[in-house]
Amino acid sequence: MSENTLSGNANNESIIALLHGPDQPGLVARVANWIWERGGNILHADQHRDGEAVVFFQRVEWIPGSGSLEEESAAFEAFAQEIGMHVKTSTPNAKPKVGLFASKYGHCFHDIVLRWRSGEYPCDIACVISNHRDLEEDARHYGIPYHYFPMTKENKASVEKEEVECLRSYGVKLGILARYMQILSADFLKGFGHPVINVHHSFLPAFAGARPYQQAYERGVKLIGATAHYVTPVLDQGPIINQAVAAVHHRHTIRDLMRKGQDLEKMVLAQAVRWHLENRILTYANKTVVFD
Amino acid sequence: MSENTLSGNANNESIIALLHGPDQPGLVARVANWIWERGGNILHADQHRDGEAVVFFQRVEWIPGSGSLEEESAAFEAFAQEIGMHVKTSTPNAKPKVGLFASKYGHCFHDIVLRWRSGEYPCDIACVISNHRDLEEDARHYGIPYHYFPMTKENKASVEKEEVECLRSYGVKLGILARYMQILSADFLKGFGHPVINVHHSFLPAFAGARPYQQAYERGVKLIGATAHYVTPVLDQGPIINQAVAAVHHRHTIRDLMRKGQDLEKMVLAQAVRWHLENRILTYANKTVVFD
Amino acid sequence: MSENTLSGNANNESIIALLHGPDQPGLVARVANWIWERGGNILHADQHRDGEAVVFFQRVEWIPGSGSLEEESAAFEAFAQEIGMHVKTSTPNAKPKVGLFASKYGHCFHDIVLRWRSGEYPCDIACVISNHRDLEEDARHYGIPYHYFPMTKENKASVEKEEVECLRSYGVKLGILARYMQILSADFLKGFGHPVINVHHSFLPAFAGARPYQQAYERGVKLIGATAHYVTPVLDQGPIINQAVAAVHHRHTIRDLMRKGQDLEKMVLAQAVRWHLENRILTYANKTVVFD
Amino acid sequence: MSENTLSGNANNESIIALLHGPDQPGLVARVANWIWERGGNILHADQHRDGEAVVFFQRVEWIPGSGSLEEESAAFEAFAQEIGMHVKTSTPNAKPKVGLFASKYGHCFHDIVLRWRSGEYPCDIACVISNHRDLEEDARHYGIPYHYFPMTKENKASVEKEEVECLRSYGVKLGILARYMQILSADFLKGFGHPVINVHHSFLPAFAGARPYQQAYERGVKLIGATAHYVTPVLDQGPIINQAVAAVHHRHTIRDLMRKGQDLEKMVLAQAVRWHLENRILTYANKTVVFD
Repeated sequence: MSENTLSGNANNESIIALLHGPDQPGLVARVANWIWERGGNILHADQHRDGEAVVFFQRVEWIPGSGSLEEESAAFEAFAQEIGMHVKTSTPNAKPKVGLFASKYGHCFHDIVLRWRSGEYPCDIACVISNHRDLEEDARHYGIPYHYFPMTKENKASVEKEEVECLRSYGVKLGILARYMQILSADFLKGFGHPVINVHHSFLPAFAGARPYQQAYERGVKLIGATAHYVTPVLDQGPIINQAVAAVHHRHTIRDLMRKGQDLEKMVLAQAVRWHLENRILTYANKTVVFD
Repeated sequence: MSENTLSGNANNESIIALLHGPDQPGLVARVANWIWERGGNILHADQHRDGEAVVFFQRVEWIPGSGSLEEESAAFEAFAQEIGMHVKTSTPNAKPKVGLFASKYGHCFHDIVLRWRSGEYPCDIACVISNHRDLEEDARHYGIPYHYFPMTKENKASVEKEEVECLRSYGVKLGILARYMQILSADFLKGFGHPVINVHHSFLPAFAGARPYQQAYERGVKLIGATAHYVTPVLDQGPIINQAVAAVHHRHTIRDLMRKGQDLEKMVLAQAVRWHLENRILTYANKTVVFD
Repeated sequence: MSENTLSGNANNESIIALLHGPDQPGLVARVANWIWERGGNILHADQHRDGEAVVFFQRVEWIPGSGSLEEESAAFEAFAQEIGMHVKTSTPNAKPKVGLFASKYGHCFHDIVLRWRSGEYPCDIACVISNHRDLEEDARHYGIPYHYFPMTKENKASVEKEEVECLRSYGVKLGILARYMQILSADFLKGFGHPVINVHHSFLPAFAGARPYQQAYERGVKLIGATAHYVTPVLDQGPIINQAVAAVHHRHTIRDLMRKGQDLEKMVLAQAVRWHLENRILTYANKTVVFD
Repeated sequence: MSENTLSGNANNESIIALLHGPDQPGLVARVANWIWERGGNILHADQHRDGEAVVFFQRVEWIPGSGSLEEESAAFEAFAQEIGMHVKTSTPNAKPKVGLFASKYGHCFHDIVLRWRSGEYPCDIACVISNHRDLEEDARHYGIPYHYFPMTKENKASVEKEEVECLRSYGVKLGILARYMQILSADFLKGFGHPVINVHHSFLPAFAGARPYQQAYERGVKLIGATAHYVTPVLDQGPIINQAVAAVHHRHTIRDLMRKGQDLEKMVLAQAVRWHLENRILTYANKTVVFD
């Protein structure tokens, strides 16, 4: 829907708001009215009501009619809080800083970087953090700073603090674990304080933990999967964002499962990252609402 | 979203409206306000704007706050026309009469009837129309009147008139071609005057016309498909509602393609019929907007 | 490959053999030679070698050159055992007796019966066994004897014995659990002594046990699944034959998951049953080798 | 199956043969015997018989028992021709030279190169041929010679000759069109004399020719596709190797179709190239037999 198509600010830049809170009468109308009355032009509006939890969710994108993006965002946030909603606003051109975590496998690393480089992602990949040197030269070719943090059981706590410092120095607002083979501790997550997206190489909740392809091979499943989820302190238990599967049969070795699985991992992670960067994801009760 | 959850009519029965028309400022707000101000409770609202055609589409479902369903539907239609929209309202409990067309193949016929019998479809299957007797006994078991209309090139025009009469006598508002092996003429479509959904056994626009599995086999494709679409006077050219495909390989004979294809035909048609009966489909410019 | 196309027995009836045993040099050549030297005509031959377990698997179908099907089957079995293989022969026209188990849900029941009735399955559905009366009238319409065995915790052991007697009286060689809501005991499986195929309404090993759709909804997965497997005494742990998934999102209620899941259940079970009836499945180490 | 596991040449290197020719009695046995009698060890054997064309196809891989790979390959080819078969042998470690064609889009180019670099493909990417300079720096990073051939209508014939010379100078045995935006002429194909794999950005035969995403958008299809095929002088009409599709709906713009389609193009082309390099593809009657 397009409201007030003749007005809009000079650059036709839009605001995206993600709202959620207790369901109540007239929410759609009140939000639409607030925007309309200030001369705003709604580009998209999508809402969801969880009938069991009686929670209202909305994603709305509009071009404000007057005032700067900052002023209108702040005014909308104040309005949304007044009507009892949690709210987060952003702008498509804000391009948040992203920190990419990788280890030895390069497939997800290259996939994310190449999508970003071709303009597919509204973000800046600020740095790569790795516990190995394997991808350092490729990162240099891409022009992305590479921070090598070798990690052992003993130094993990202190190295994680350095990593948090590193991410802060770049202003990173999103972490992406591109098959990063280290578990982030609760302290790291708390210290970093921003969302982290991981890809797990199984169809969660099946085969959580280590060596999922080995587990899948031994159980004799006919489909293997991959799962992108937000990281929480409990391993492989965070809110699921995206999942995909591929058929396998008795001729496939574990090596084949890994190869086929890598294609799934790339697709599943790439889509989850896009949704996050386009501000399409709300989390609630350890689940995600994805306004696609 | 749920508006005015404490009000609503006695039975909590809802109205669904499908709107489309020229895009203009404030449409979302105006529709939401109209409902809110009359004490209505919006259950779902979904909208789309075709950026190229500058057309606005909306599906909105609400529980009216007072007045009968008929009164509120009529009032909404008047309001929508005032703001320049084409509009069609319905109620989930209306259960439109459906006419099912079949020939010799029973797979889509049984699939549709069994879904209806298990309560999956909000409709009444009023009658079966067929140019063969093969499914007559099954229809009797299901308790659905069966009308046998043998058809030849010579009698087609007059038989189609009888069929239209038959459908009218039941008050049929939707035709479903469950692998019906006759082409409906433009005169039939005009005489009937209601939507007809067909399933074509290929991935349109590939392999339109006769013997699509033979065509697919000869071209050596690696996927076969099925397509559900609204029938128009131009064969296999109507607005596409739903499509699906399945993998095939060199070991599959034409007979295998037919068998695998029948599963696709059932799934694709069943979903298209559900969307239609739930008033989720708008057609525009020979395309469909499906609010799923 | 077609061997000796000019010979063959009077009716061109074929034998299918499923072999497995320790891998050893020259197995393919020895089997092919044995058939060729007796004037047989190989229609299909498919083999697999499990590199880790060093086990050889083969499915071979041929038209014997002379001698009756029984004589040639017996001779082949003797030969196969001589070279150290487990072997099972059958003929496509043997049409084994099948016992169909159902409870209240009819979707898998109708799907299996209608495929059989349309000639898709080389078997005879000998009887239906149910702990409810819901599908009795439909079974009568299909002309299949219906045996009602109400079951309680108390009578389970004795009722299962009656069921085994019933199946034996028909000569049933395959049990199909078409969403049968009772767990078969180890005693039943031993007493029956033939394979039983079940469909579980989740993507195993995720969500084994009771209420899988509820479990899936609560975990917030983005794909739901269904799994066909052979029944063993350990619940939901038998060899997996076939699996499929469908996408779900936040708008889907548990009821939607059930509806979408029922379509998966039908497809997954139907395919597994076909493979079994066409003698395409070997089991080994709690896995299946499916020669499709 | 594994034959003569205790023998085999020093390095356990294998030979792969692709055979096809008129079907006749005993072919499977004769091939297996020939290998067995010379002490060979069959690793895989897969065959297919086209019942309509009465043609036999086989892929067999074995470790020869004695003699060099060259001697045994030559002896097998002589034997196969004696029994009336077309035959082509190769060895997994032969690593044929590949020429990669690209224009401006980099997604397929990077995907193919990165898979090769990670060891997924048994080949050497010898050179890149392009009518643009866009990917030159990336090719340099990958260490692959880049040949820039600007092309116009006027110079096409002479430039194609230079390209053929260039490919010959590297000993290229396979061309891969990674979204190369030029049509190869019949003269080029004849001059090059080796297979060329293309990816077309639609589900062929639908939307052949130019601007397939635009065509798909206008027709309102609900699935978009990509097709990998061998190039023949007739545009988009060569034997299909691999196809895939993805769901689209009314909210997707042409730009979205292109983005989603690029993921399909990568997957479909990558798989087709792998099958070709593993000698899994036979072509016959403008179709492919893929022994996967």
